[in-house]
Amino acid sequence: MSQWKRIQQLEIRHLEHVDYLYDDNFPMDIRQGLASWIEEQDWELASNDESVATVMFNNLLTQMEKVRTQEQNFLQRHNMKIIHQQLQVKYASNPRSWPASSARV
Amino acid sequence: MSQWKRIQQLEIRHLEHVDYLYDDNFPMDIRQGLASWIEEQDWELASNDESVATVMFNNLLTQMEKVRTQEQNFLQRHNMKIIHQQLQVKYASNPRSWPASSARV
Repeated sequence: MSQWKRIQQLEIRHLEHVDYLYDDNFPMDIRQGLASWIEEQDWELASNDESVATVMFNNLLTQMEKVRTQEQNFLQRHNMKIIHQQLQVKYASNPRSWPASSARV
Repeated sequence: MSQWKRIQQLEIRHLEHVDYLYDDNFPMDIRQGLASWIEEQDWELASNDESVATVMFNNLLTQMEKVRTQEQNFLQRHNMKIIHQQLQVKYASNPRSWPASSARV
């Protein structure tokens, strides 16, 4: 079971704290859709190395595209596409700013 | 069955057109979560009358809050909260600009 699945089994008062950690900079759709992949990455390394961050960011976009094409739910597929576009605009020129935010949960 | 549910039964090539109609100005989460309520409103009237638009916008926020509290899915509940906040910031001072976008589907 991914850490993300375990988090969702917390009591509601703890879940409220988790809720506040996610916004447009780190959409929860990604945390959920790519849970296992996210938990396998070395985010600390990426946050300290521009080249690693760039590779990881491109891998993230590839993973998102893979999840999107396999997703059966129309809304979730749509949201994954929108977030993919937003991340490209926001972080393509500065991928190191992306993995840093993942230390949240 | 809501019009929104019927739309999702379209072939994939038609669904792709629907996909392009929704962005941050009219998040698909709202179209899905409030499908029946949206289809019952007189959007044309609201787009031509500031007072009606204001009332309808406030009703929309109330409906969103209702849907959010009843939602069992953590991600969808979270997204509904984020969108609620974004709409308040974006349209509270100009609610007429909101219903106009609903003519899309």
